[in-house]
Amino acid sequence: MRIGIFDSGVGGLTVSKEVAIKMPFNDIIYFGDSIHLPYGNKSIQNILTYSRNNVQFLIEKKCQIIVVACNTSTAVAIEILKKEFHPLPIFGVIEGGVREALKKSKSLKIGVLGTLRTIKSSSYKNKILQYSPRAKVYEVASPLLVPIIEEGFKHKAITIAIIKSYLEAIVLKIDSLILGCTHYPLIKKLIKTTYPGLQVIDSAKATSSFLAKKIPPTNPRNRKIEIITNDDNEVFRRIAKKIFPKEKVTLLKNENST
Amino acid sequence: MRIGIFDSGVGGLTVSKEVAIKMPFNDIIYFGDSIHLPYGNKSIQNILTYSRNNVQFLIEKKCQIIVVACNTSTAVAIEILKKEFHPLPIFGVIEGGVREALKKSKSLKIGVLGTLRTIKSSSYKNKILQYSPRAKVYEVASPLLVPIIEEGFKHKAITIAIIKSYLEAIVLKIDSLILGCTHYPLIKKLIKTTYPGLQVIDSAKATSSFLAKKIPPTNPRNRKIEIITNDDNEVFRRIAKKIFPKEKVTLLKNENST
Repeated sequence: MRIGIFDSGVGGLTVSKEVAIKMPFNDIIYFGDSIHLPYGNKSIQNILTYSRNNVQFLIEKKCQIIVVACNTSTAVAIEILKKEFHPLPIFGVIEGGVREALKKSKSLKIGVLGTLRTIKSSSYKNKILQYSPRAKVYEVASPLLVPIIEEGFKHKAITIAIIKSYLEAIVLKIDSLILGCTHYPLIKKLIKTTYPGLQVIDSAKATSSFLAKKIPPTNPRNRKIEIITNDDNEVFRRIAKKIFPKEKVTLLKNENST
Repeated sequence: MRIGIFDSGVGGLTVSKEVAIKMPFNDIIYFGDSIHLPYGNKSIQNILTYSRNNVQFLIEKKCQIIVVACNTSTAVAIEILKKEFHPLPIFGVIEGGVREALKKSKSLKIGVLGTLRTIKSSSYKNKILQYSPRAKVYEVASPLLVPIIEEGFKHKAITIAIIKSYLEAIVLKIDSLILGCTHYPLIKKLIKTTYPGLQVIDSAKATSSFLAKKIPPTNPRNRKIEIITNDDNEVFRRIAKKIFPKEKVTLLKNENST
């Protein structure tokens, strides 16, 4: 079973990495829709169009399982994609993170960090309350974290000050925090160092565990990992190299690139 | 003479505002290519394609003068656009800022803040040295400033810390600083408060002055200002309302929106 994974840019590679570890014999094709990054501040209508096109592209690449490795796209499009591409199995990044948080949180007071669009959609809140109506959910939009990660911003003290500015209002109320954006695992350590008492749930890890449970294992074989993007930029190459040092990044050149 | 102005998103409205003040009788059409924002981290090839499409769109809207109100696009595409659309008058945002800086700087030691792509292109440095080979130019990529401005980040102390982190290495060497991104005029006050001794050159103001000198004045008449974007998002509407409180934002829906 070949797994197709997409995100608006490079963030979803954190999910791909965990999937690659937990499912060591499946082919993986990653598509980064970099010309439209970030999805977090685009309109719902366009996020839906891009998500559809990405699934279509991965189907053409013979993927039989799709992972929407983007919280914004999952929040906005997952239910529609599941219906439109039925019976293709499509997994988002919200389900796994929510289940993991409900398992780990003792007080059922859970924080969520995400992009503006993800938080506005209340997708995490709704999903948590669906499973556990007694839970209290504190959602915080943290739009500066993606650019800080993408640009490799070097000033640790300022990055911590920004993390604190987003969390100061909720951190004393919660015992668990869901990282509701596939970029955030790249600063997970910094968040854990700043708030050592907090359970930090990494949706990349949670999603790959969820996937590994749902998909029957493949027999041992040499598998292929392919990383494809439609805009050639330094940030993508730099972060891809950090997460997948050995894999080549292929640049897609076609009429879809405008 | 109808003036067409474009940027990747909402930033170029700072230029449009100054053009609207200095040229009070010209029709102005602004186009924000929001589905591809930000240009600052896209590839040169795609920035060129988007810039061409934007000029074409403004020509179809009967504009007779084009202003590329985006430093990244000016840095990458202006010379090619001038050739391809000759004899259409096309103005970038670099020329005006450079001339203004050379007028105001006494030491000829000039700093430039810009996006990664603008700074990598060395367009400011090259243009300054073309006019004044004795000048010393200190260029700094400051990729976090656009997201801070777009998201309306509220923590002033952190924003100042970020500004300082970008400028600390050069601020004692220079007497003038060019704001090499059309978003930056929105934090000009903060920069001036942080460094009161510095001449801060706003490329929006400089470009509009340059334009007003080059274009013959129009007879007094009621003019129309139109603001068009191809992606409906809250950030665009919020900042557009701040800069042009009375003008309506039109959403362009067509096959170009993907």
